[in-house]
Amino acid sequence: MQHITNHQWCLAARPVGMIKTSDFTWEEKQLEKPGEGQVLVRIIYLSIDPTNRGWVKETATYLPSVQIGEVMRGIALGRVVESKHPGFKAGDLVSGMLGWQEYVVKKGEELTLLPENLPVPLTAHFGLLGHIGLSAYFGLLDIGKPKPGETLVVSAAAGAVGSLVGQIGKIMGCRVVGIAGTDDKCAWLTSELGFDAAINYKKESVFRKLREYCPDGIDVYFDNVGGKILDTVLALINLKARIVVCGMISQYNAEKPVPGPYNLGNILVKRARMEGFIVLDYFDRAGEAVSKLAQWYSEGKLQYRLDVIEGLEKAPETVNRLFDGSHTGKLIVKVSEED
Amino acid sequence: MQHITNHQWCLAARPVGMIKTSDFTWEEKQLEKPGEGQVLVRIIYLSIDPTNRGWVKETATYLPSVQIGEVMRGIALGRVVESKHPGFKAGDLVSGMLGWQEYVVKKGEELTLLPENLPVPLTAHFGLLGHIGLSAYFGLLDIGKPKPGETLVVSAAAGAVGSLVGQIGKIMGCRVVGIAGTDDKCAWLTSELGFDAAINYKKESVFRKLREYCPDGIDVYFDNVGGKILDTVLALINLKARIVVCGMISQYNAEKPVPGPYNLGNILVKRARMEGFIVLDYFDRAGEAVSKLAQWYSEGKLQYRLDVIEGLEKAPETVNRLFDGSHTGKLIVKVSEED
Repeated sequence: MQHITNHQWCLAARPVGMIKTSDFTWEEKQLEKPGEGQVLVRIIYLSIDPTNRGWVKETATYLPSVQIGEVMRGIALGRVVESKHPGFKAGDLVSGMLGWQEYVVKKGEELTLLPENLPVPLTAHFGLLGHIGLSAYFGLLDIGKPKPGETLVVSAAAGAVGSLVGQIGKIMGCRVVGIAGTDDKCAWLTSELGFDAAINYKKESVFRKLREYCPDGIDVYFDNVGGKILDTVLALINLKARIVVCGMISQYNAEKPVPGPYNLGNILVKRARMEGFIVLDYFDRAGEAVSKLAQWYSEGKLQYRLDVIEGLEKAPETVNRLFDGSHTGKLIVKVSEED
Repeated sequence: MQHITNHQWCLAARPVGMIKTSDFTWEEKQLEKPGEGQVLVRIIYLSIDPTNRGWVKETATYLPSVQIGEVMRGIALGRVVESKHPGFKAGDLVSGMLGWQEYVVKKGEELTLLPENLPVPLTAHFGLLGHIGLSAYFGLLDIGKPKPGETLVVSAAAGAVGSLVGQIGKIMGCRVVGIAGTDDKCAWLTSELGFDAAINYKKESVFRKLREYCPDGIDVYFDNVGGKILDTVLALINLKARIVVCGMISQYNAEKPVPGPYNLGNILVKRARMEGFIVLDYFDRAGEAVSKLAQWYSEGKLQYRLDVIEGLEKAPETVNRLFDGSHTGKLIVKVSEED
């Protein structure tokens, strides 16, 4: 394993608006051998998530900003090449904040050992059974607290998290209405995933369609986008409604501050609750979610789609596909072969 | 009691911006005798509250809008003149939505019988022990859930609700910072009520002063005003902060829609919770609050101020004193003598 050449994407400039490939530099480095307690990992899959855009801003979000010159942060999974930590051996499947690179040396404590005997593809570990599945599960159930018969609205409903949220909402006995950006996505939600209705926000009046599809008002809104759609939903919430703030992707590329919703006063009038959550806070309860999600998947109650882009060199341009609506399913960059 | 002449303020036009006396008409009517199950009440005190401004808007809030021609809605207390309901007798002290008038005939079920043996003035029934006290008690404790050692910020802190919230926060062991609109009010908060610090938002930078007075960040924000102050507080909230939305008085007189806070995204980054409440929802738990508030008052831990305006004819102009900051304490219109 001596003299492994590593390629990595390092942050070169703070992006303005949408990310450009020139905001990063493609660097080639000789890899160090792992020291005591460390593990060398070959990265297989890199998860591309809307939150990546927030990590490269000047101001810290829920994690410190990635600094200029640093390897870009990213959730990934890979295989152990060499271990100097008693908890790992060569060939083990692991996940963690491995970054936008081909190889990484990490302390054992920074890695999660993944089981390989599950009847799901490897990618499920950061889709259905990873941070995506946990976001949908805990965000909807812990924060949204949907009750049978209530109406749940989901934005970015054809996205990785949104599509799971809607399906879990159906399992919970809710009426589920999704908002997405193409007719194809809307058709997928209603004909394949069992959503009761879907709205193409690029072609239809979200307000009028929500009023039509939610005749009893909106009890839970799982928000991935913020902005105008949040504002519209606020106009239609019921008493004691719950708004789960999972993301605000409409604002991640904004070049100047964006005002909040005009209808925020409805939080008071309707005694509603708006609450943010970050999936990192739930990793210690992952077991509960993973066993439920795996069970529902094996019972055929959950489906999900992947959108796999080949090659680490495409990582920067791939982030933008989360914001222009051109992806269909969980976005993943394939960095190397599974075995 | 035959031929009682009643005077009442009826809504004549939807106010634009601040209320004008000409938005109401002063009407004189012969009073009907109470029918079976009804009670005739002489109104003594009328409570003037920020929410009154919302009730006369075109669109309903948490209650239906007052319609043109109707007697203006208002919380009030008074004495029974004549009762045809078994639960009430002449001389009883009662409260309810009695309206802006001298007398009212109500069904017994619409009235609350008040005790007269408490060591507090009559006005305490809608100040300390009424909807004001209940708003402070349940809003702070049920929604804000302050813990000892946490930092609580209160806006409109010298107002009827805000001044109680801050004092209850001190009883709970919090660091308490108030925001008010005059130096006199700020001095009252810190020297009389025990607030740790107070900010005059008309003279000082709220952002800089909050950063100075809240060195450990803000855990609970009790919001009576919305608007820019809410936006500023959002920039300084801690992880898992709670924002209690009790009022948005900065917007009640707005003539066009007002955008929400630019920093709303911090709800996500900080996994914070923003929740509205209306005191009406807590009336069935009033006993719990009243006994605690009366106990704290008798122990000298709670103070409050009244601002009593003489004469029902002044009711319309009095509402504006809630918004121009010229009142000092719970605003009350005295309609008739206590006995």
